[in-house]
Amino acid sequence: MTDLEDELRALVGAGHVLVDGDLRAPYETDWTRRFTGTARCVVRPATTGEVAAVLRACAAAGAPIVVQGGNTGLVGAGVPAGGEVLVSLARLDRLEPVDEVEAQVTAGAGVTLEKLQAHARAAGLDFGVDLAARSAATVGGMIATNAGGIRVLRHGSMRAQVAGVEAVLPDGTVLTRLSGLAKDNTGYDLTQLLAGSEGTLAVVTRARLRLVPLLPARAVALVAVAGTGAALDLLAAARSRLATLSAAEIFYPDGLDLVRAYARLPAPFGEPAGAYVVLECAGRTDPTDEILETLSTCDAVLDATVASDRAGLDRLWSYRESHTEAVSAAGVPTKLDVCVPLGELSALVTELPGTVAAVAPDARVITFGHLNEGNLHLNVLGAGERAEQVTDAVLRLVAAHRGTISSEHGVGRAKAPWLPLSRTPEEIAAMRRIKAALDPAGLLNPGVLLPA
Amino acid sequence: MTDLEDELRALVGAGHVLVDGDLRAPYETDWTRRFTGTARCVVRPATTGEVAAVLRACAAAGAPIVVQGGNTGLVGAGVPAGGEVLVSLARLDRLEPVDEVEAQVTAGAGVTLEKLQAHARAAGLDFGVDLAARSAATVGGMIATNAGGIRVLRHGSMRAQVAGVEAVLPDGTVLTRLSGLAKDNTGYDLTQLLAGSEGTLAVVTRARLRLVPLLPARAVALVAVAGTGAALDLLAAARSRLATLSAAEIFYPDGLDLVRAYARLPAPFGEPAGAYVVLECAGRTDPTDEILETLSTCDAVLDATVASDRAGLDRLWSYRESHTEAVSAAGVPTKLDVCVPLGELSALVTELPGTVAAVAPDARVITFGHLNEGNLHLNVLGAGERAEQVTDAVLRLVAAHRGTISSEHGVGRAKAPWLPLSRTPEEIAAMRRIKAALDPAGLLNPGVLLPA
Repeated sequence: MTDLEDELRALVGAGHVLVDGDLRAPYETDWTRRFTGTARCVVRPATTGEVAAVLRACAAAGAPIVVQGGNTGLVGAGVPAGGEVLVSLARLDRLEPVDEVEAQVTAGAGVTLEKLQAHARAAGLDFGVDLAARSAATVGGMIATNAGGIRVLRHGSMRAQVAGVEAVLPDGTVLTRLSGLAKDNTGYDLTQLLAGSEGTLAVVTRARLRLVPLLPARAVALVAVAGTGAALDLLAAARSRLATLSAAEIFYPDGLDLVRAYARLPAPFGEPAGAYVVLECAGRTDPTDEILETLSTCDAVLDATVASDRAGLDRLWSYRESHTEAVSAAGVPTKLDVCVPLGELSALVTELPGTVAAVAPDARVITFGHLNEGNLHLNVLGAGERAEQVTDAVLRLVAAHRGTISSEHGVGRAKAPWLPLSRTPEEIAAMRRIKAALDPAGLLNPGVLLPA
Repeated sequence: MTDLEDELRALVGAGHVLVDGDLRAPYETDWTRRFTGTARCVVRPATTGEVAAVLRACAAAGAPIVVQGGNTGLVGAGVPAGGEVLVSLARLDRLEPVDEVEAQVTAGAGVTLEKLQAHARAAGLDFGVDLAARSAATVGGMIATNAGGIRVLRHGSMRAQVAGVEAVLPDGTVLTRLSGLAKDNTGYDLTQLLAGSEGTLAVVTRARLRLVPLLPARAVALVAVAGTGAALDLLAAARSRLATLSAAEIFYPDGLDLVRAYARLPAPFGEPAGAYVVLECAGRTDPTDEILETLSTCDAVLDATVASDRAGLDRLWSYRESHTEAVSAAGVPTKLDVCVPLGELSALVTELPGTVAAVAPDARVITFGHLNEGNLHLNVLGAGERAEQVTDAVLRLVAAHRGTISSEHGVGRAKAPWLPLSRTPEEIAAMRRIKAALDPAGLLNPGVLLPA
């Protein structure tokens, strides 16, 4: 074992090969505390060249690797299963100057979303993806998982923001495609193949990212509706009338109760409702009047509160964005991230509690998510030792409603056994052929994504 | 040879296996008349199952295949090099009902863009890609080449419209992914891998396509400017001020002369100008005032004419859209489709005539294209036997300006030798590994895309 560690020390510096258990620990457990494993060592390369050298050394030693960005993943793809070399990309944190003519920027894999956003905004632009884990989530991890978040409605998922990547294959080959040309039809789109591949094909080290116009005028509405069906009616009205719509989120009374207790927030309305929708509009001029007009003519609206000043925006968003932390404070959740066609959403929400209760009677489900995409985050608390049975029952229910077992978190280790619910045997076989073509020894993120 | 033809007749019906030269001929020469070759036979399957059976039969016989959609390709990827079985997908022309809730539709590979557009518009929606070859270009071909066109500015290229595909691997394996979920992070995005792969990995037989809002109010401005630099100034103003901007095209005086003579169009302005820009805005309300205001405050504008009625829109667009036919009427062009960063566009346009003249003194270049993406269609007329030298000189010039040798037409056979100008040796090696993984015998579109 010692030979490889010595070699890695020579490549990245002794201070960046962590072998001691205390030093490794922060990297070995994920944010949910549900996934944990022991790494052989943690390596922290600082450049693409160092990543390539580390991968070559591991390949020569036949040592499996797990790749980690900000360690905000929710499906166990970024922590060791046991015995891997953990490659942390946190030090690849260089942000190049914004190209204002092309509205693009090149960023290292270890750059956090928050730093990327600040960098773009300082140049009068913005980044198209936003999500609650922005302070820690990194560019590399967001590409590897094709992260989604609250602005997919307006700008698409992470893959839509990526004009190109630099990435290292398991044999140390460096693929560089950072020209960022607006249209480039010269062969296979390796960038799009790597986006969402969860670190199983290559290690993304840098990315050329598209930026979007900075829209300074925002307005948010928190709307009380009778339930999921009414929320969808409101969504349809908002989509057809609000050209500046940038987010449409949903949560439910039990989530609101949890969030209010955790974040000490007041009740948003005098009367409780069946569901709550957050609509955000963003434009060059204040969209408040547009929102108010749409709300006033939509029968689904029971009550609503609208804000367009910074404090008000933060206050209304906090009802939605505090969900993740409030849930985690209440216990270790089994987190399931699913997507169904909009026509199936009401039925799924209705059937969910019974499905969970049938296998874990003491569990409860806190549901919230991205209404526009039919993407719900299902947080099962109190499943205890029945977590796997709950996962199985819920994912089968989702598949029965023509949904997918992962909408934006990825498959990871958590859902790999259930991949056949969402991909056909032929698709999985084709994926294995591609995996074998680029990672013939199977050293990158073994056990992640593809069922063992 | 006869055994395979007999087998194919049994699979698709004798009337759909064309062996006679006269029957094959319409499939064997491309639209430009530059690329032509003899097919072993032409096969016209009608279903995905028949495509799979045809591919299995060809695989068993070791027979190479070339795949053809509407035969509107411009790089020789859809016509035989010599001796291939030509698989025409024209009969896969089924259009399923529009899903209005999800704003999606499933279409066969052989559906033409024009039929797809009419189908979407009848449901109050629209398709995001539009291009001049709409009457013949097909869904399958547009996915295989990741077609671009005049609305990329607003909606992105073809790959952005494709939510999923059904495709057949060379061994007859059918991959089906037509659920069209808004977000689905369950493994490698095979759809995006196939988009732009030019039929070298699999045969796309059906697609789940995203639709966009139908924007009934359009206005077009034809603008005279001093040259490429002024056109870019106008573009910057339009992008920052016109939220409804949907197209920004450019052409030059020599193209205008050719188009006017071919289509018998009047001079658009009293004075000739250095370049001409077509701006289109599309929205829910008439964008004419918005355009006029932007034009009136932009110093780059020398003269302009604006229309928002159907006849006026067609008339102004015809100056740009007649270019392809006018060029073809003038001779067999060497068509090069390139893209450079916007900051390099003026220099490219300036240096181009001299670069061409140095290798083909009698040739002339008609240039037009999609300004927003820095994508120029270079049409070299009169290159004669110097077509290859012209191609080489122009593509090297483009590469020197950090551009790509193919922006939206693809690489095909025409540009395969120059692929190393746009992709690194490491990228090409990775592409070959993926090709070998999915098409180990190399039967699909041999000679296309990857240099021999």
